[in-house]
Amino acid sequence: MGLYRNIISLTLASTSPRRRMLLKNIGLEITVTSPVCDEKAGADESPIDQAMRFACEKASSVSKKENITIGADTIVVIDNKILGKPVDKDDAVRMLSLLSGNMHRVITGHCIINRDFKLILNYAVSEVTFRNLAKDEILAYVETGEPMDKAGAYGIQFLGSAFVSTVSGSYTNVVGLPLCRIVDELLQIKAIEPDI
Amino acid sequence: MGLYRNIISLTLASTSPRRRMLLKNIGLEITVTSPVCDEKAGADESPIDQAMRFACEKASSVSKKENITIGADTIVVIDNKILGKPVDKDDAVRMLSLLSGNMHRVITGHCIINRDFKLILNYAVSEVTFRNLAKDEILAYVETGEPMDKAGAYGIQFLGSAFVSTVSGSYTNVVGLPLCRIVDELLQIKAIEPDI
Repeated sequence: MGLYRNIISLTLASTSPRRRMLLKNIGLEITVTSPVCDEKAGADESPIDQAMRFACEKASSVSKKENITIGADTIVVIDNKILGKPVDKDDAVRMLSLLSGNMHRVITGHCIINRDFKLILNYAVSEVTFRNLAKDEILAYVETGEPMDKAGAYGIQFLGSAFVSTVSGSYTNVVGLPLCRIVDELLQIKAIEPDI
Repeated sequence: MGLYRNIISLTLASTSPRRRMLLKNIGLEITVTSPVCDEKAGADESPIDQAMRFACEKASSVSKKENITIGADTIVVIDNKILGKPVDKDDAVRMLSLLSGNMHRVITGHCIINRDFKLILNYAVSEVTFRNLAKDEILAYVETGEPMDKAGAYGIQFLGSAFVSTVSGSYTNVVGLPLCRIVDELLQIKAIEPDI
């Protein structure tokens, strides 16, 4: 038995299995569609503006008038530098060495496009602190393969959980969607309801 | 492939499937043993002292000299009142109504008993904030059964994730073990090592 059920069909404009899982875990039925977005940073665009714009572009690229569409984009920022997905193992080691012993920010922009094409555009920022990692821990982690498809070269849910000492803000935002806020927004626009 | 491997056998003095999962997820082999602890609060004992004492009693009740034993106890505190596991559905509704729209604290005390019977005794406090919940959301959640075996009547990992707007502190502490800290302590006493 789920906690919520759809009133309207929901499309997730993201191929991230983690985002889909967050929504499916609470009982929602989700259609996943691959979005189109070149993810090219604008000149002088802040990380928050960039995350919201990418989320909006992703959602817009697949929205249909009979569905509600959710787009999201997650960015990892440390010392005002954006960390994307690592290009290779050395790049993952470099990113994890930057994160070790430090606090960084995870920003997820999200965009919900309603059937009347009205937009909800929002974002969440979470601060994540890593403990000091030994070189061997970083190398062992990179060898598992987990870092390779993730912004900032870590996943907070599985192996990366051993590195994260504290989170301040939404935890699911670090996974890929600020779930609590999105559920609240979907309830408000009557896209979903408690499954009672 | 795991992130860490055991050097010494580890016993978890807890039957919580969530605690076991946290440790197994990062590659550790864990023997689970049911502890003995009457969990009776002392007069004038603070929630932190209580959680650490229970953790220590649990670990002591099953420790053996050839293993390293981990005990833990998780407590939910709101307005200086401790919320245990709900006794029935009405009790779960009562607890969730208290948590709705408010911040509460989750305290996990943990105790690691080394083979020389030296103790590590520690605790973590996380602040968790729920958004305002509608009555129907609380009722739907209680009907799923998830709240019934959990202190404070919610689980942060699955359905309860839709209720939690922010966490400040260790997230895994709210699940049942401050994993990052415990891994660090296990590395320091050479109970585990990176699996490289």
